[in-house]
Amino acid sequence: MSEKIVRIAELEIDFAQLDAYRSLLSEEIEASVNSEPGVLMLHAVSEKDRPEQIRILEVYANQEAYEAHLQTPHFLKYKEGTAGMVKSLRLIDVDPVMMRAK
Amino acid sequence: MSEKIVRIAELEIDFAQLDAYRSLLSEEIEASVNSEPGVLMLHAVSEKDRPEQIRILEVYANQEAYEAHLQTPHFLKYKEGTAGMVKSLRLIDVDPVMMRAK
Repeated sequence: MSEKIVRIAELEIDFAQLDAYRSLLSEEIEASVNSEPGVLMLHAVSEKDRPEQIRILEVYANQEAYEAHLQTPHFLKYKEGTAGMVKSLRLIDVDPVMMRAK
Repeated sequence: MSEKIVRIAELEIDFAQLDAYRSLLSEEIEASVNSEPGVLMLHAVSEKDRPEQIRILEVYANQEAYEAHLQTPHFLKYKEGTAGMVKSLRLIDVDPVMMRAK
């Protein structure tokens, strides 16, 4: 299966733990994009007015790449390390309309 | 002012005009990223289950680049051409947490 997986994750984080969450998320994103050929994009942002609201635009090369990602040490560290910080998580499957960047 | 502008646009499109909307949006994104040095990223996606729900992750080099973008012929063509297709538009200012792509 070669179809790219594109998704938006919407998370609400415990405000008291937001700095720690951002640090763990940043570390996980850098490790994933640097070391996994099938992790093509992870763009995480927080709302200016509600910084505990995190959104991540995710692109994986295919289903296998995504499943492999879930088993990596850096993802497991993030998942376990942030389990007590994430108040809600919503995953939205999306299709690209047009994606361009410099 | 040199601070990057990062934003998410959330749009609901008239379903009957969705194909036309996607075409105009795609053309506008390609023209903007190709021809404007200050338009750094435009990633538009649609929800798989509700394709009339469009989200765009936008990055501009700074406020001046964004304001210049609003005056370009390709943006004005998009804005005028889609005025009757857009049922709602919400702009959310965000801060990057970590943005990485291949």
